[in-house]
Amino acid sequence: MTGEIVLTKMNRSILLVSRPERMPNETNFRMIETPIPDLGEGEVLIRTLYLSVDPYMRGRMRDAKSYVPPFPLNEVLIGGVVGRIVESKNPDFSTNDIVVGRLKWADYSVSNGQEIKKIDPHTASITTALGILGMPGLTAYFGLLDIGKPQPGETVVISGAAGAVGTVAGQIAKLYGCRVVGIAGSDEKTHYLIEELGFDSAINYKTTTNLKKELSEACPKGIDVYFDNVGGEITDAVMTLINYQARIVVCGQIALYNLEKPDVGPRILPNLLIKSASAKGFIVSDYAHRSQEGLSQLTEWVVQGKLRYRENIVEGLENAPAAFLGLFLGENTGKQLVKVSD
Amino acid sequence: MTGEIVLTKMNRSILLVSRPERMPNETNFRMIETPIPDLGEGEVLIRTLYLSVDPYMRGRMRDAKSYVPPFPLNEVLIGGVVGRIVESKNPDFSTNDIVVGRLKWADYSVSNGQEIKKIDPHTASITTALGILGMPGLTAYFGLLDIGKPQPGETVVISGAAGAVGTVAGQIAKLYGCRVVGIAGSDEKTHYLIEELGFDSAINYKTTTNLKKELSEACPKGIDVYFDNVGGEITDAVMTLINYQARIVVCGQIALYNLEKPDVGPRILPNLLIKSASAKGFIVSDYAHRSQEGLSQLTEWVVQGKLRYRENIVEGLENAPAAFLGLFLGENTGKQLVKVSD
Repeated sequence: MTGEIVLTKMNRSILLVSRPERMPNETNFRMIETPIPDLGEGEVLIRTLYLSVDPYMRGRMRDAKSYVPPFPLNEVLIGGVVGRIVESKNPDFSTNDIVVGRLKWADYSVSNGQEIKKIDPHTASITTALGILGMPGLTAYFGLLDIGKPQPGETVVISGAAGAVGTVAGQIAKLYGCRVVGIAGSDEKTHYLIEELGFDSAINYKTTTNLKKELSEACPKGIDVYFDNVGGEITDAVMTLINYQARIVVCGQIALYNLEKPDVGPRILPNLLIKSASAKGFIVSDYAHRSQEGLSQLTEWVVQGKLRYRENIVEGLENAPAAFLGLFLGENTGKQLVKVSD
Repeated sequence: MTGEIVLTKMNRSILLVSRPERMPNETNFRMIETPIPDLGEGEVLIRTLYLSVDPYMRGRMRDAKSYVPPFPLNEVLIGGVVGRIVESKNPDFSTNDIVVGRLKWADYSVSNGQEIKKIDPHTASITTALGILGMPGLTAYFGLLDIGKPQPGETVVISGAAGAVGTVAGQIAKLYGCRVVGIAGSDEKTHYLIEELGFDSAINYKTTTNLKKELSEACPKGIDVYFDNVGGEITDAVMTLINYQARIVVCGQIALYNLEKPDVGPRILPNLLIKSASAKGFIVSDYAHRSQEGLSQLTEWVVQGKLRYRENIVEGLENAPAAFLGLFLGENTGKQLVKVSD
């Protein structure tokens, strides 16, 4: 199939055709086929190898102000892509260069070179440029270290712990000498966190009858750092157990992304007040000026075997919407990717 | 009356005899009269001149873990006091020294000298040691500057703006070149903030029909720093208007102190997330190691006339409970004090 598309120079791409109201579904997306555009001077043509599905994209599907503008309706979705240069009119890129960037959910993207950068396929699997050595890894690195500021002996709790960001944040916290407790949505995930990633404890929030009690047993010295990917009731339970001067890293709120209107819950400012604690939101681009620092350190840890990772790979561009939807069903352990071509 | 008590060496003091369930009332307090204890070696006897009533004391009346242990029932309340040494067996203190410290709600307190410090009655009115040059002033100083980090041209919103802390925080923000908007509970207070303290705008939250709309008009460039003394619905309105990388200074939550059980409201972590914003609680003792720095700067500003203050003074130890209750009714503009003797 893929070969034929190259020959006919047709380009499949995926549009957002309606805004999800709660949980997104397949009808929000549509695949179209268009000719591959000709390149102008300075442009390159990129064959998509892998594309990344990420929870933050749900926010961009909403027609509301957020840290990034909403995806326009009836246009091709944009996300993290690893691809190969198949044609270049840009002196900085050669055919067969492997690049990563924010590109189209399509077989091919055209770029003027500004939104892509070359990656070295010999350092690590090229897929890591979308995971542990890409946006999710940097998110974990800066969120945990810059906002969480973990100290040896402290207790770090991570929600969404088995996801692309949580798995990295937890392992870094272990490297910093912390007790690390993960919260995840299946026994398979909690076993993975403990047995393969070295978490000290992990709680399946879907089967526990008393999350607060399990958490307090897993954190006998209270909670110093909470790396939150989830929000909602999981976070409510954590907030009651934070220590003096605890740091809450607000990385994601996936439990709330599909709600029709803003959720209510226990107010947390009183908790922050009585504990002199802090909560800070962030997005990885806040640290764009330090991305090289983060990438160097993460690469070193990966090469040394100090950080491990897992990838879930779905085959076929046409399955990208389903892979995206799976993020909200807890289907992935580690990084969820879509393989578009070889 | 006061004279007689000195002569008979009897000491009136106020006990907490029951824990308030919602709004405290007079039945939670009882005045008793006991002999003034004899001094041991190293001790001083302090005649209370002024005592301070402060919102944080409500938290200590609850039998729950907080940053400070609860007041024990049937014991004398402890709070900020300015007094005169009337007898000294401590070489560091002489008769007639004026001191400030955390002492009893009583005509007299005995101290070993550790919880008191001398103040210079020539620098400013001795009452300021309980207000602008004391705990509330330092709270405003460290909260605003260390957590709020106001930058010239930024917009700072302050809830409870006419209180002992809010009035100082707002004036410091003006000294730092900010647009300052206060939220307070009467027209008299909002006029005071604008006309006498130089706030750019002030909103009476009790009479507005749309706090969010008034706030957004008063803050055309959004909100960069929110100094929160109040919490609850006022804070809900502010949170919808915060800017990228806004700082929320969680100083008090007086709207919630008298609720029977924890309140619910719109979740704020999504707001922090999409704005890369932070919220941090604190208590002034977090900055104990820097109190001299704060006090020197505040004193300089007061002496230079750059910071103004107002005090509400109620006469008579027996009226201390009523003055305390008044804090929750919004009766005070500026610092609420009780004058116990001349």
